[in-house]
Amino acid sequence: MIRLYNFFNSSTSYRVRIALALKGLPYEYLAVNLRKQEQRAPAFTALNPSSGVPLLIDGEVQLSQSLAILDYLEAKYPEPRLLPADPLTRARVLELAQGIACDIHPVNNMRVLRYLQQELGATDAQKNAWYAHWMAEGLCAAEMLLQRHGHGSYCFGETPTLADCCLVPQVANAARMNCELAPYPRVMQVYEHCQAQDAFQAAAPARQPDFIQ
Amino acid sequence: MIRLYNFFNSSTSYRVRIALALKGLPYEYLAVNLRKQEQRAPAFTALNPSSGVPLLIDGEVQLSQSLAILDYLEAKYPEPRLLPADPLTRARVLELAQGIACDIHPVNNMRVLRYLQQELGATDAQKNAWYAHWMAEGLCAAEMLLQRHGHGSYCFGETPTLADCCLVPQVANAARMNCELAPYPRVMQVYEHCQAQDAFQAAAPARQPDFIQ
Repeated sequence: MIRLYNFFNSSTSYRVRIALALKGLPYEYLAVNLRKQEQRAPAFTALNPSSGVPLLIDGEVQLSQSLAILDYLEAKYPEPRLLPADPLTRARVLELAQGIACDIHPVNNMRVLRYLQQELGATDAQKNAWYAHWMAEGLCAAEMLLQRHGHGSYCFGETPTLADCCLVPQVANAARMNCELAPYPRVMQVYEHCQAQDAFQAAAPARQPDFIQ
Repeated sequence: MIRLYNFFNSSTSYRVRIALALKGLPYEYLAVNLRKQEQRAPAFTALNPSSGVPLLIDGEVQLSQSLAILDYLEAKYPEPRLLPADPLTRARVLELAQGIACDIHPVNNMRVLRYLQQELGATDAQKNAWYAHWMAEGLCAAEMLLQRHGHGSYCFGETPTLADCCLVPQVANAARMNCELAPYPRVMQVYEHCQAQDAFQAAAPARQPDFIQ
């Protein structure tokens, strides 16, 4: 059985949980508490030199980096497909997914926020302004891409893709951090549609075994 | 002809230039000066809502996000292939590429460094320590992944892949910013091998028409 080292509150883990649920793949949930820095424990870094989650183990394969994992799952378990066959739609899906994965998430993740406060002495207000700034920049770009190229109930059509797997956890983070979401109506339409679907619900942080308030 | 909006000093642009050179694809070079914030000019954001480079234009297709562009080029111009056919090697290539694209580059790019100084009042020393910190974390992970899974003259074998397209610009940045590179012997071996190849040389910042010291 697939094993997934992850953390309920990690949005990169959440991306992979959505894809696994959409593909109907059962997996063993192995919790790594990022708040306690368990990802830096030697036993874990021996498994994953990048010392982060998610880490997927599938037979002989041990793989980190959520978007590499999503690509691997797509190749190994192709149904239902989360990357469209049409090359242009595929490019649009990856453009949106990479925008979230590269332009929003890395700048606002826990290790960066911790560095801001511990090494640079940023106040809570400065940390929150930083968070809101990069979220707004990234969601604004996502909204414009969706306004221009998106269609249907999901980001790109009537079936979910990797773009939805990346968008939902990012918007969930924004909501949790009280970021303004009204300026992104198309993003929110997709988000709310996804949140009503079983696979997205099953992958949500509050439904995971390591969830704590 | 393919057109590429880019900037000599942008490492995400540099990734795409390497891939275009490896595939032998000629392109029109359209310079966007990030130092002058030309990527925020309305005429450019109309083309690319993410207001960044690179932006590829190929016939009807206008595409942003370097890794989405690399995937698109691979599908449309498959020879020589930069993503291995073997699923596990493909996964390793993407794991390394995404690690660079998500864990190193976004935290150290120009807009983030500018925010640190202008909004948070970081000193030059604090900015440089920030830069060196994330570079060291990321290159350490890359080194361990290459020690564990890499082989051959390039990251993964005797032909270049997307991993090399991402690694070389990142190491070039590290060298330019005087980061310590001795702890990463396998990374440096690959880097130096790549730097001796025509395609990598043609894509280097100093060889671009908008290059300035």
